[in-house]
Amino acid sequence: MSDFESYIRSYFDTFEDNVIKEAMVYAMDGGKRFRPRLIFSLCEGMGIEESRAYPCALALEMVQAYSLIHDDLPAMDNDDLRRGKPTLHKAFGEDIAILAGDALLTHSFGVIAGSNYPADVRAKMVKALSDYAGMKGMVYGQLLDITTKIPELDQKRLYDIQVNKTGGLFKIACLFAMYLRGEDREDYYKELGNRIGVIFQNQDDLFDIIRSEEEMGKSLSDLKNEKPSAIALYDRSELEEIIEKEFEDLSDYLKDADFEPAAFKKLIYSLKNR
Amino acid sequence: MSDFESYIRSYFDTFEDNVIKEAMVYAMDGGKRFRPRLIFSLCEGMGIEESRAYPCALALEMVQAYSLIHDDLPAMDNDDLRRGKPTLHKAFGEDIAILAGDALLTHSFGVIAGSNYPADVRAKMVKALSDYAGMKGMVYGQLLDITTKIPELDQKRLYDIQVNKTGGLFKIACLFAMYLRGEDREDYYKELGNRIGVIFQNQDDLFDIIRSEEEMGKSLSDLKNEKPSAIALYDRSELEEIIEKEFEDLSDYLKDADFEPAAFKKLIYSLKNR
Repeated sequence: MSDFESYIRSYFDTFEDNVIKEAMVYAMDGGKRFRPRLIFSLCEGMGIEESRAYPCALALEMVQAYSLIHDDLPAMDNDDLRRGKPTLHKAFGEDIAILAGDALLTHSFGVIAGSNYPADVRAKMVKALSDYAGMKGMVYGQLLDITTKIPELDQKRLYDIQVNKTGGLFKIACLFAMYLRGEDREDYYKELGNRIGVIFQNQDDLFDIIRSEEEMGKSLSDLKNEKPSAIALYDRSELEEIIEKEFEDLSDYLKDADFEPAAFKKLIYSLKNR
Repeated sequence: MSDFESYIRSYFDTFEDNVIKEAMVYAMDGGKRFRPRLIFSLCEGMGIEESRAYPCALALEMVQAYSLIHDDLPAMDNDDLRRGKPTLHKAFGEDIAILAGDALLTHSFGVIAGSNYPADVRAKMVKALSDYAGMKGMVYGQLLDITTKIPELDQKRLYDIQVNKTGGLFKIACLFAMYLRGEDREDYYKELGNRIGVIFQNQDDLFDIIRSEEEMGKSLSDLKNEKPSAIALYDRSELEEIIEKEFEDLSDYLKDADFEPAAFKKLIYSLKNR
């Protein structure tokens, strides 16, 4: 187990045993930790020890886990499977799923507030987590996602969904690294988060297209009508071209970075081969 | 409108118009603001300007509103009415209710982190809000509430439910006032919160008994079997006696207070005549 996984485990060990704790651990299990790794890759380029970022990376991963739990609920996406396991409400019941999501969200802020970061860094991190996991980011993006009808989807709306729903937590990851370093280039790091969000989501949608072509089980037209995603606007070759362009633009954007971008670039390019 | 109500309104005015904002405002509307008033009454006894407490009082009221939204959901208590209006999921749909609750919880932490309190006070408040709205308080109490079967309810379990589910947010209120003052008597203020939680909940249950006797519509035996509350353990006169004793004990406890308790006492005693 990696050091970060041990850190996660030891954090949840501090809770008393009960079904909510069990549910939180279940929901945290098996994630690819992309958002934590994003923070770590930025830290590497800034010369900050990875373990220094563990508290804020854990907090962000907890917010990610809560969002998946609540998104999967019957009243939302009504999903039965997540990471190859039954979704939390399938495994523990809907009431426990709602509560466990609430608990993860609630304690994510406590992880930061209770860390040994300087008090002003903790306050800045809490504010950013609140803003971009909330109405300036993820929750707002989720609202757009569930209320946008496919016929009204256009490039602008798709971009808004991507930078908020997906990009919200990436903005937080970028800002967290910046706060740890102690410099003030909020706009640069927020835009960086937006760009990762768009690439991540487009790449995800591309995989859905490729998989549906390969499996032949799920027709592409079904996918097109399901969700306000890139699949509804573009075909495979268009989307591949768009992503290629976004990677190039990101490379240009990184020329202005105040960190050594090698580790970060490597992580982002790994998205192509998930 | 009181100054605090104006403050609440102007906070929500900062959000862009959409259905989540509408739902948050709907959920915040019409509350008795007991928890904010608790903070204000402590501040009065400490010589702290009431408006100084507005940010933390708003945050706490947002957490209270989120908890009611999620508790009312079909998978939880499945309530149709709240404060004489349709519950949020009845008025806005279950998906919006889940999201609006998530948004209120998420932004409650941002209200504190973005306030002009000193950074260390903000960090302490965020930690306390996280702990006692979470697994050391409200969420844990809600877990006990939904998993405790009436036959296994005893005094000890009832106390645990009361000090966590109800007392959680009261502990936060007491600690917030203490942090504003800047003294360190955490144990004293937490116990104060516990005592208010027990009195508040017992008094609430007593009203349920009195109402059911008066209305004759809902039989007491139904109430006894519904929820793990004082009603399942005590009859009216027993509960009245218990509450009387708790008020006396609270008076004794306040002899050790480091604030002038008149305003606080007046507020707590007003619980008898809600």
